[in-house]
Amino acid sequence: MSNTELNTLFESLLREDSYAGCEDAEKFKKWIPKIEKYRQDLENSIPNSLKVELPKPREELIKEQFNSINYLYKHELLTPSEFKITDTEGSELVFQMSKGHISASDVFSAFAKRAVIAHQFSNCAVEFFLDDGFHRARELDDYYEKHGKIVGPLHGLPISLKEHLAMKGKIGHVGIVSLLDNITPEDAVTVKVLQNLGAVFYVRTNEPQSLLHLDSKNNITGLTKCPFNLLLSSGGSSSGEGAICAFGGSVIGIGSDIGGSIRSPAAFSGCCGLRPTSRRISGRGVVGDGNGQESVVGVIGPLARRISDIELFMKSYINDGKPWDLDPWSLRIPWTEVKPPTLSSLKIAVVRDDGVVRVSPPIRRGLNTIVQKLKQGGAEIVEFTPFKGRLAYDVACKLSNADGNKELHAAFKASGEPLPRITKWYLNLGEGSRELSVSENRELNSIRDNLRYEYSDYMVENKIDIILGPAYNNVAPHSEEVYNESYTLLYNLLDFPSLVFQTGLFQDPEIDKWTNEDLKYEYRSKLEELENRGYKPDEFKGAPIALQLSGRRYFDEEVVAIGKSIVDYLGVDLLK
Amino acid sequence: MSNTELNTLFESLLREDSYAGCEDAEKFKKWIPKIEKYRQDLENSIPNSLKVELPKPREELIKEQFNSINYLYKHELLTPSEFKITDTEGSELVFQMSKGHISASDVFSAFAKRAVIAHQFSNCAVEFFLDDGFHRARELDDYYEKHGKIVGPLHGLPISLKEHLAMKGKIGHVGIVSLLDNITPEDAVTVKVLQNLGAVFYVRTNEPQSLLHLDSKNNITGLTKCPFNLLLSSGGSSSGEGAICAFGGSVIGIGSDIGGSIRSPAAFSGCCGLRPTSRRISGRGVVGDGNGQESVVGVIGPLARRISDIELFMKSYINDGKPWDLDPWSLRIPWTEVKPPTLSSLKIAVVRDDGVVRVSPPIRRGLNTIVQKLKQGGAEIVEFTPFKGRLAYDVACKLSNADGNKELHAAFKASGEPLPRITKWYLNLGEGSRELSVSENRELNSIRDNLRYEYSDYMVENKIDIILGPAYNNVAPHSEEVYNESYTLLYNLLDFPSLVFQTGLFQDPEIDKWTNEDLKYEYRSKLEELENRGYKPDEFKGAPIALQLSGRRYFDEEVVAIGKSIVDYLGVDLLK
Repeated sequence: MSNTELNTLFESLLREDSYAGCEDAEKFKKWIPKIEKYRQDLENSIPNSLKVELPKPREELIKEQFNSINYLYKHELLTPSEFKITDTEGSELVFQMSKGHISASDVFSAFAKRAVIAHQFSNCAVEFFLDDGFHRARELDDYYEKHGKIVGPLHGLPISLKEHLAMKGKIGHVGIVSLLDNITPEDAVTVKVLQNLGAVFYVRTNEPQSLLHLDSKNNITGLTKCPFNLLLSSGGSSSGEGAICAFGGSVIGIGSDIGGSIRSPAAFSGCCGLRPTSRRISGRGVVGDGNGQESVVGVIGPLARRISDIELFMKSYINDGKPWDLDPWSLRIPWTEVKPPTLSSLKIAVVRDDGVVRVSPPIRRGLNTIVQKLKQGGAEIVEFTPFKGRLAYDVACKLSNADGNKELHAAFKASGEPLPRITKWYLNLGEGSRELSVSENRELNSIRDNLRYEYSDYMVENKIDIILGPAYNNVAPHSEEVYNESYTLLYNLLDFPSLVFQTGLFQDPEIDKWTNEDLKYEYRSKLEELENRGYKPDEFKGAPIALQLSGRRYFDEEVVAIGKSIVDYLGVDLLK
Repeated sequence: MSNTELNTLFESLLREDSYAGCEDAEKFKKWIPKIEKYRQDLENSIPNSLKVELPKPREELIKEQFNSINYLYKHELLTPSEFKITDTEGSELVFQMSKGHISASDVFSAFAKRAVIAHQFSNCAVEFFLDDGFHRARELDDYYEKHGKIVGPLHGLPISLKEHLAMKGKIGHVGIVSLLDNITPEDAVTVKVLQNLGAVFYVRTNEPQSLLHLDSKNNITGLTKCPFNLLLSSGGSSSGEGAICAFGGSVIGIGSDIGGSIRSPAAFSGCCGLRPTSRRISGRGVVGDGNGQESVVGVIGPLARRISDIELFMKSYINDGKPWDLDPWSLRIPWTEVKPPTLSSLKIAVVRDDGVVRVSPPIRRGLNTIVQKLKQGGAEIVEFTPFKGRLAYDVACKLSNADGNKELHAAFKASGEPLPRITKWYLNLGEGSRELSVSENRELNSIRDNLRYEYSDYMVENKIDIILGPAYNNVAPHSEEVYNESYTLLYNLLDFPSLVFQTGLFQDPEIDKWTNEDLKYEYRSKLEELENRGYKPDEFKGAPIALQLSGRRYFDEEVVAIGKSIVDYLGVDLLK
C-alpha cells in the first residue's frame, strides 16, 4: 500500500467535529515569537563545550536511519572515565559516592555531557539548566565532605524529568503553545521527594502536544527521535525520557503514563520503563494532572536502562520519600523486598495478539524467541488471549475523551496552534467531541471494573505470576504514525503494574518481513490495516525489540522482581 | 417552633422535580403481598423460645422513650453465663475457644438470644437464619475437636451483616421494594473473607430505602430504633447494625458508609464504628455498590462496642483475609501494629462547629467535657475550624446526586413505592434530579482534591495527630428527622478514616437545654434552623453522646490506636 493510500485510509477514520474550531492561523502568529524564544532559550542553555560535532547534518542522519548509540561508542564521544561513570548502575554510583570514591560533581559532569549529546541526536530536551546541576552536585559534595555521609539513597544521581513535572518558577506547558505563559509556582511533589532524596536535576524533556500521543509531535520543540534509528519515533508521551535514558544521558528518568506513555518511549527508544500501579508515585502538582478525571488515572513512573535502577527509584521514593506526607492520594504501601524468583517457579501467561491489532514480524520474532528461551529456562508458559480485548480498548478510548475534550479544546483555542494529524487522531478516539453524562461515565467505569475482576480472578485462580506480551504491535514506528495504544492501554484500564524491558534483539529488515501467510490476512479493522500496512521492513532498521510484563494490581514489587529474573536470565544488559 | 412550623420549613426546602414520577400507588399494590411475605418470613425466622415478653406493647415503649439496654440488665433477660459471654470482647472469646474453654456453640447460643431480644425492641433485623448459625458453630466445634485448633482469627464469632452485603441465594434489596425479587447469586467478597476467617453468620440487618438516609425509613420492614431510647432513630444507613451492636447482639457488625452510614448508627445507637479509608475493606459484590461512581466511594467497615473488636476485625480481615486476592480494588496495605500512644504525646485538633450546622446542647457538653479531660490527661488541644466547611458540604452533596438520581428513579419507579419525606430530602441534595456532565463532575472532583490537600497539609505541617469533633450536630434525632450529614460527610469527601466512640455521657433533659444566648443565635441557613429547632430537650432522654476521631488518609491504624488510648483514659467500657 502506498503512502497516499495509507493517507486516504487515515483520513477516512477522522471526524472533523472532534477538533473543529481549535486552529486559528491568524491568532497563532502572535505566539510564534514566544515559541522562537523558547527554542532559543533551549539552544542557549547548552554550553558549546559539551557539544560534539555531528557526522552529518541531523536531517541527513534522520533520513539514513542513523544509529546514534552505536556511533557514541564507536567514535568514543566520551572519555573512558565518562563512559565508566555513565554506564554504571545508580545504586553502585551512590555506593561509590558514599565511600568517597567518586564525587557527585564527577558523576554529574559525565552525565551532563552524555545528555547534551543525546539531545543533539534525538532532540530529547526542552530545557537544560546545567549550572543548577553543577551547583547542586557541589552542594552534595560539600555535604559529604562536612558530614561524612550522603544525603539520601539517590545522593548525586542525575535524574531527568519529563517537562510536565512542574518546577518552581519555570514554564509548564505540556506541549501546548498557549501554556508557554504558564509559570508554575511550586515544584511537583515528586520533584520535591526526589530532591529530598539527593537527586540532581539538570534537564527537562520533550513530550507531544498535550501529552496526547505515543509520539512526540508538538509545535514547540518538535519531534524526538529513537536513538537507535533517528528516522523513528522515540515514543511518547514521555518522549524525551525514552531517548535520554536509552542514550544514557540520565541514570533514571521520570515520565508519566495514562495510556502507555512510559512504556511506549521505553520500548521504542530502547530502555526499560515501569508504569506502577496508580497512586504509588505522586502526581500532585504536575501540569495537566487530569483535573478530577479518575476513570483511568495518570501515573508517574521511572525509565532506566537497568531494572535495578527502576527498583532503586521505587524503593527509595516510597520507603524513604514517604510521599503520603506531601500528597494524601499517595498510597501508604511500603515497597517490600521481593527476591527475583527462579524461572522454574514462574507461570507466565503469554499474549500474542490482543484482538485489536496484529503484531508486526519483529515483535512476533521477539516474542517467539523470548518465550522459547523462557521455556528452556524452566518457566511454565500458558497461552493467553486477553478477555474482551476489543471491548476493553473501546471503553478505554471512550473514557479517555469522556469530557468531549472540552479542556483541550479550550487550551488549543487559546493560541489557535495547528493540530497535527496525530493530535486529531487522538481527539477522535472514543466519542470524540461528544461529552458524556455522569451516568454514561459510570457505566463505562462499571465495565472497566468488571474487566478488572475478570483479569484479576483469572490470574489468581490460575496462579499466573505475570502476563508477557508486546508493548505495542510494532517496534518504534515512524514519527506521527502511532495510531494504536491497545497493548499498553489495557493495563492502564486494569491498573496493572507494567514493565517494559528490552529483549536485546533488534529489527532486521532481512528477517522481519511479512510472510506470504501474513499477506493473506483479513484485517479485523481499519485501525489494524493502518498499523500493519505501515510496517515496511526496510524502514525500521535496528529498532529495539521490547516486550511488556504485567502483574496484578499492587503487585509492583513482584513485576519488578520477575523482570529482573527474566532480563538476568536473558543476559540483556543495556549498560554494557 | 411547633411541629407544623417545622414541617412548613421542611416543605420550603424541597424541589418536587427531584422525585417526580417515582410513586405510583396503583402499581405499588401489586408489591404489597411480597412485602407482607418478607415480613412474615422475618417473623417466622425467630424461634419463640428465644423471645422475651416485652413489658408493654412496643408502640407504648417507643412513646415513653424506653431504654431497652437498661431493661436488659435490670430484668436479667439473659442468664449470667449468657451475659458473661456476650459481654466479652471478641479476641478474648476466640482465645477461650482456642483453649477449648468454651465452644462456638455456647458462644452462638448466647448471642442468638441477645440478638433476638435486640430485634424485639429495636426492629434491627430483616432476616434471621439461626439454624445456619447453629450449624456453622457446631461445624467449628467439630473442626476444633478434630484438629485441636481454631480455623482462623475470627473463629466462632457471631458477626451481623448489613442487608446489602450480598449472600448467595438470598434476597438483596437495599431497602428498595422493587429489589425484593433480586436473588444474589454469590456472597459478597467481604462475606467470603469473614467466612474464611471463622465468622458465624445468623442475621442480616435493616437499612433505609436505598441506603439513602442517616436513618432507617423504608417500606419493607420499617424503622429501627435506638436501644437507649426507643423513640429515637438508630441512625443509618447501617441502621440495624447500630442497634444490634449497641445492644450486644453481635460481637462485630459489618456496615457501610458513604456519608456517615457507619458512624451515624454507631453514634446514635450507642456503640463504636469505624469508617476505614476507602478500598481497605472490599465492597465487591455488595448490592448497590455504586456502579462506577468513584467521586466519593462507599466504604465497608465494622461496628462494635469495644474498639479492640474493631481492631480485631481490621487486622484479621486485612492481614489474614488478604482481600486483594478476591478483589483488585482492595489495597494491598498490611494492617500494621500501632501501639496506643500516651495522651501527653497527642496533638488534637478540636472541631466545635463545622460552619454548616451548630451543635445541640448535649453534643456541646460532651465535647467540652471530653476536651477538658483530655487536656487534664496531658494532650495538646488546638481549636480547629474546618476549612471551607460549607463548600465541602455543597460539593459532597452535589457529587452524591451527580447522576441526577437516574438509577434510583428507575429502581423506585419499578414498584411505584411511596417515597417518605426523608427520601425526598436526600434526593433533593446537591442539584437534585439534574444530571451533571463529565466536566462538571470532574470540576467537583478537583475541588474535592484541593480540599484533601488543604486538610492533609494542615495536619502534616501542624503535626496534628487526630481531629476530634461531633459525629452529628445532635444526639440521635427522631426517626425520619436527620437532615444534615455535614459532620460525617466531610470525612467521606476527604477519605479520612473516622472512628465514632462513646463518651459514656448521655443526654439529660435537665442539663442539656438551649441557653438564653443560644436562643438569640442567628441561623446561617434553613438547614441549620431545621436541625436546631428539632432539638427539644425532653424528647431525647438518655440518648448516648458520641464523638468522632478522624485521621489522615490511610492512617487507619493510628486512628484506632488513638481511639483506644482516649477511651481507655476516659474509662468508657460498653461491655461493663
